[in-house]
Amino acid sequence: MKILYISPTGRSLYIEKMARVIEHARRPDTIVDFVGLPAGRPTHLEYHTYEALVLGDLVKIVRDCAGEYDAIISGGYYDVGMRALREISGKAVVVGPCQATTAIAATLGNTFSVVVGRPKWINRMSENVRLYGHGDRMVSMRAADLGVHDFQNRPDAAELIMATSRRCVEEDHAEVLILGCTVEFGFSSRMQQELGVPVIEAIPAALKYAEMLADSAQRFDWYPSRKWGSEAPPESEIAEWQLFRDPPPKGRTLRVGEPIQTKPA
Amino acid sequence: MKILYISPTGRSLYIEKMARVIEHARRPDTIVDFVGLPAGRPTHLEYHTYEALVLGDLVKIVRDCAGEYDAIISGGYYDVGMRALREISGKAVVVGPCQATTAIAATLGNTFSVVVGRPKWINRMSENVRLYGHGDRMVSMRAADLGVHDFQNRPDAAELIMATSRRCVEEDHAEVLILGCTVEFGFSSRMQQELGVPVIEAIPAALKYAEMLADSAQRFDWYPSRKWGSEAPPESEIAEWQLFRDPPPKGRTLRVGEPIQTKPA
Amino acid sequence: MKILYISPTGRSLYIEKMARVIEHARRPDTIVDFVGLPAGRPTHLEYHTYEALVLGDLVKIVRDCAGEYDAIISGGYYDVGMRALREISGKAVVVGPCQATTAIAATLGNTFSVVVGRPKWINRMSENVRLYGHGDRMVSMRAADLGVHDFQNRPDAAELIMATSRRCVEEDHAEVLILGCTVEFGFSSRMQQELGVPVIEAIPAALKYAEMLADSAQRFDWYPSRKWGSEAPPESEIAEWQLFRDPPPKGRTLRVGEPIQTKPA
Amino acid sequence: MKILYISPTGRSLYIEKMARVIEHARRPDTIVDFVGLPAGRPTHLEYHTYEALVLGDLVKIVRDCAGEYDAIISGGYYDVGMRALREISGKAVVVGPCQATTAIAATLGNTFSVVVGRPKWINRMSENVRLYGHGDRMVSMRAADLGVHDFQNRPDAAELIMATSRRCVEEDHAEVLILGCTVEFGFSSRMQQELGVPVIEAIPAALKYAEMLADSAQRFDWYPSRKWGSEAPPESEIAEWQLFRDPPPKGRTLRVGEPIQTKPA
Amino acid sequence: MKILYISPTGRSLYIEKMARVIEHARRPDTIVDFVGLPAGRPTHLEYHTYEALVLGDLVKIVRDCAGEYDAIISGGYYDVGMRALREISGKAVVVGPCQATTAIAATLGNTFSVVVGRPKWINRMSENVRLYGHGDRMVSMRAADLGVHDFQNRPDAAELIMATSRRCVEEDHAEVLILGCTVEFGFSSRMQQELGVPVIEAIPAALKYAEMLADSAQRFDWYPSRKWGSEAPPESEIAEWQLFRDPPPKGRTLRVGEPIQTKPA
Amino acid sequence: MKILYISPTGRSLYIEKMARVIEHARRPDTIVDFVGLPAGRPTHLEYHTYEALVLGDLVKIVRDCAGEYDAIISGGYYDVGMRALREISGKAVVVGPCQATTAIAATLGNTFSVVVGRPKWINRMSENVRLYGHGDRMVSMRAADLGVHDFQNRPDAAELIMATSRRCVEEDHAEVLILGCTVEFGFSSRMQQELGVPVIEAIPAALKYAEMLADSAQRFDWYPSRKWGSEAPPESEIAEWQLFRDPPPKGRTLRVGEPIQTKPA
Repeated sequence: MKILYISPTGRSLYIEKMARVIEHARRPDTIVDFVGLPAGRPTHLEYHTYEALVLGDLVKIVRDCAGEYDAIISGGYYDVGMRALREISGKAVVVGPCQATTAIAATLGNTFSVVVGRPKWINRMSENVRLYGHGDRMVSMRAADLGVHDFQNRPDAAELIMATSRRCVEEDHAEVLILGCTVEFGFSSRMQQELGVPVIEAIPAALKYAEMLADSAQRFDWYPSRKWGSEAPPESEIAEWQLFRDPPPKGRTLRVGEPIQTKPA
Repeated sequence: MKILYISPTGRSLYIEKMARVIEHARRPDTIVDFVGLPAGRPTHLEYHTYEALVLGDLVKIVRDCAGEYDAIISGGYYDVGMRALREISGKAVVVGPCQATTAIAATLGNTFSVVVGRPKWINRMSENVRLYGHGDRMVSMRAADLGVHDFQNRPDAAELIMATSRRCVEEDHAEVLILGCTVEFGFSSRMQQELGVPVIEAIPAALKYAEMLADSAQRFDWYPSRKWGSEAPPESEIAEWQLFRDPPPKGRTLRVGEPIQTKPA
Repeated sequence: MKILYISPTGRSLYIEKMARVIEHARRPDTIVDFVGLPAGRPTHLEYHTYEALVLGDLVKIVRDCAGEYDAIISGGYYDVGMRALREISGKAVVVGPCQATTAIAATLGNTFSVVVGRPKWINRMSENVRLYGHGDRMVSMRAADLGVHDFQNRPDAAELIMATSRRCVEEDHAEVLILGCTVEFGFSSRMQQELGVPVIEAIPAALKYAEMLADSAQRFDWYPSRKWGSEAPPESEIAEWQLFRDPPPKGRTLRVGEPIQTKPA
Repeated sequence: MKILYISPTGRSLYIEKMARVIEHARRPDTIVDFVGLPAGRPTHLEYHTYEALVLGDLVKIVRDCAGEYDAIISGGYYDVGMRALREISGKAVVVGPCQATTAIAATLGNTFSVVVGRPKWINRMSENVRLYGHGDRMVSMRAADLGVHDFQNRPDAAELIMATSRRCVEEDHAEVLILGCTVEFGFSSRMQQELGVPVIEAIPAALKYAEMLADSAQRFDWYPSRKWGSEAPPESEIAEWQLFRDPPPKGRTLRVGEPIQTKPA
Repeated sequence: MKILYISPTGRSLYIEKMARVIEHARRPDTIVDFVGLPAGRPTHLEYHTYEALVLGDLVKIVRDCAGEYDAIISGGYYDVGMRALREISGKAVVVGPCQATTAIAATLGNTFSVVVGRPKWINRMSENVRLYGHGDRMVSMRAADLGVHDFQNRPDAAELIMATSRRCVEEDHAEVLILGCTVEFGFSSRMQQELGVPVIEAIPAALKYAEMLADSAQRFDWYPSRKWGSEAPPESEIAEWQLFRDPPPKGRTLRVGEPIQTKPA
Repeated sequence: MKILYISPTGRSLYIEKMARVIEHARRPDTIVDFVGLPAGRPTHLEYHTYEALVLGDLVKIVRDCAGEYDAIISGGYYDVGMRALREISGKAVVVGPCQATTAIAATLGNTFSVVVGRPKWINRMSENVRLYGHGDRMVSMRAADLGVHDFQNRPDAAELIMATSRRCVEEDHAEVLILGCTVEFGFSSRMQQELGVPVIEAIPAALKYAEMLADSAQRFDWYPSRKWGSEAPPESEIAEWQLFRDPPPKGRTLRVGEPIQTKPA
């Protein structure tokens, strides 16, 4: 199984650390290729302006890679541009961390809370959770007052996340916790021990979801629908307007897993 | 990975056929044990009375088997008694076909329809789909006018399902189809070819979902929450009232997959 | 009018006390028969496992008694198994305390809160309240931190319920209160005086609702629907599978009200 | 028990016929007083302008009569001005036909349809049904293309209602029917026989609901809340502004039930 | 453009102050005519009884004035009787302050809070906000514990509003504030400076909305629908019942803006 | 008042025709500047891939122009990227045609239908309508089976739109119609005459809404919130990453309205 993980930021600062998370999480038969964006892009996506500025890149990468991968994970907990990425992904299923984590959380408890970084994120992410159907299930979304770059750099990050999470469990009656940022990793083990509830991290959840969907696609031909709202743009227009004439805007890449024979496109 | 598939009816009429579906669907490292109910139980669960009469059996089987399996699938598209089964399952995650199919469908298209057997089922199943969060995404649930035992026995079953499905796609604008019965299997390949949309069957979807959750539990300790509404009954009460004193009401069993070493309880 | 009140637990511990509540609440022309479950059943239903273990009993009792009663109340504020009980109840209407209390509360104020025993109950009961249509009307459901057996036994029960209720009124702006357990009786008079809002108890509300529906059934033939999702299981299957061959699992019984001539089944 | 039925129109054209409906429906210990509005008022309330023009009358009558009655039914299926009438009703509970019929229907089946007179009514009435919490339960509201005055006067009224109702059952999968006009009475018996589903009429449903609430108020002091949104206007303002200085605008009156001593106003 | 502002109370206590607000807010080509109600009406509408008592007056004024104005604003933040006023307004669009403020707030931020006077108002106003479609967007409605007459008379009004608003922003994460009373004016400038979020006042918002709709009606013939639920009552019935025979119950009047030639009715 | 209208496609094919629509619609004191995108962009946005590819352009144009305009309209009925555009617009309010049309429709009738071009659009646009709060109000969204370029080019466009609209009114009971594409202009006059309901077109509605918001911003300082979810990206990051270093990707431009003095940036 080949899975592409797009790190939707400019310098792919956490790509090696994320690779270790993936290495621990992947099935033995899964290969994950990371790809970042070129220089000159934002190094985080906390603002919707930044999302907008990289969305074109993401579409171009998905268009370019669709034939090579069974599934594509688009990093960032805003699940940036899922409609567009899914439209242009051909036979590859596209997974967003928010959809994956909330779907898994919904099987492990009746309610969940999402612990995010900054209040800025809450409105956008809450809307997604509602659109995914978990409006009643989410009892709170709380900010730990940490920016994306704080999660792996500030020494008190774990402590702040824990304090916020404890309020989610004790005050809001969350039965499951979700860490709502793809850079918010490495915290769940200790949290699970101390808080006694499952703590879902974004990258492993997205990977497991992607593996499941890729596996299902291979076995049962459950490929993305191309009907009605999921119809892909006509190749004739793409060609006429030369929408993908330039090489895809790829930044750093990194492979996790043993090399296997790539299947023909 | 060991997964228990509970066939919640009295004679396990389709267990061999289902085993072939599982054999095609499982990961190489997955063992699936089927277990049916003893004689004297209904052979289908179309009526809520029947669900009620077997729910005690299901709870007892889950209680008995929880320690041996990583995940448990409870057959039947009503997702019978999920709250109770999940409460008593210890560290095993419990998967219902309705939750699994709708979650997968939500990644393959914007909308879906569910093709069920008889109108009787629609209200109960629709409520589940809404509770799982897919009320806006489900554009219709239609009955093919087939009972549970008709799916594998009536020669015109495929034709009736196809006709109903076509209306879902053309009139209701479904982008994805779900076959809403665990006995409604063996139809998707041809349907996908003729209708051009993904057609999700219940057993493979539930298995893939169970594998993903079992795999995640093993790697990340994402076990079912036991907090607040997910709190399990106290062992002291179970002992005092001898709730599980009798041997669990198991019927036929069947194993799919190579035997592996069972882990200690 | 004859009404059956099923006390869905093993020892019917509160049956005499409940009988006094009913005696005060019933219309002069109403006879209420209590029936409990046999020994070996849980003495409370706080856990969904316990619900599941008694649901078969409830179905069997309803099946057995349907012809003798105009209405059936199934005790316990989870409104256990209403779909199944209503399916098999023939011409008898089936009433659940949660549905009855919330419907009455909706006529006495714009908002209500439900004061339950333990946090465990909240998710399950809240889902019911939403399904009954009162999601916007319920401003809170709070736990008084009392188990089922505490309500009639702990000396500080009234005080804890009162303190919790006061928060519902003052902090959550509840206009009406509901006591969310059938064993949470005997508190409303004092609460109404001190808090100045109506306080609905489960048993009297269920009885009044049952009387209304029984009365309406007698006068206008408003019997339960048997169409579509309300279709009853076919007698042929019931007979073939001998689903009700054993005598119904009845425990203690107690009659409230003057004996009247039973009508023929 | 004394119940006031306000016929909110100018000539009370159906008061005698309605009295016969009430006579058949009432408990032996129930007295129902009809009161209509004075001349010069609309004879039906199909338009919201007409509702608005009589709402002041309704408030004045409720204010005047509140002390004499245990419950008040305000006729008309728009449930006209319930917030205002309930605010000023003192200890009398106020019942609207729409709330009563839908609450009863919710106990007799999973879904219902409402058969109304003209398309004009549908938007207003549907909003009420949603506000009462039955948005998911109502599968359709259809118009029989009959005005209020047609129900008791046009010879083809029964036939048109029946044809519309049949579509509700067969096409929309309604398990229960509601006749959505207080003048739409006298049809349910035949409909129930021919259609095989319960058919709820507005006046009997409202009466039974009112009896239940009045009975409950007498026994358990479940009077309308006067807290927060249900707070009544201060008597000082009513007096200062002389809001109720004029005699209440009562039209025709009619008593159903044994004469009892009226208490002084 | 000619706009009618109906001040729906008896003494039009704030009409001159409101006129200054309008003078500052109006387009140069807008004329606004204030009209109050006659003596003997409530001087505020905090209670639904008072709304009910003046609704007939409002309908009569709208009926009388519809031909003269391009748009009509009905004062009071309950948006009293909008269905009736809109039904009878002919070609004049009718604007309610709650609908106007919430629509504008929805363009300036993702969330808003409404700061009202007393807790009494919250349930009624929240229902309106939900019906207008902003249930998810409104993060809170809080009362400053001020009555209608306190806003312009109590020296601490600004301070109380500010304290309440600060909680909306800081605790509830409101991005925009709305002042939920038409007498709650004159506060926004300072609040915007101190709180750093937009603060929408009811009268200016309603005026701007009315101007937009009036302008649109003139240019594009976007007049109120008269179809289905918006159908107006037939003139034949109005004439037969002489519903508007009396002169309209107008109180004080005041014109803001240069006199222009009235267009023929 | 200065308003920017961004035509979010590559060749601005309809810019002159749209200018005539604007000329008819604008207030005398409104200047509207059209700006299109450079060559090489899609000429319509029916696919989400195309939206994604131009979203960066839109953000850059808004960033560049924000200081010069009081309001900005982003063309295209998907309301493309509103979160991002609103975040970066400084003091300029940003208007999307879908939000404007549905808000106006909500004041002219109880229900509306949206007539769009192709079924492809329905899922995306329906989600927006629900997010804007009009899920209950929209009775249908139907496709006339016309692409964006068909509206102004196919001779049978008017006829197809009319036929589809008639079904919305007659079958779905729409009281108001909305034409759901910014190129779907020039049809409403005839439609209003023939169908007898208001027909809202996207460009005039967006313009009127923008004028109202710009006017309000000037008078009352009702500028976009910059709090919580509406917080703008920090200038330091924008500078560090040089996000807007290149000249904005503007295509054709066209001014409507008398030239006035531009205010300093």
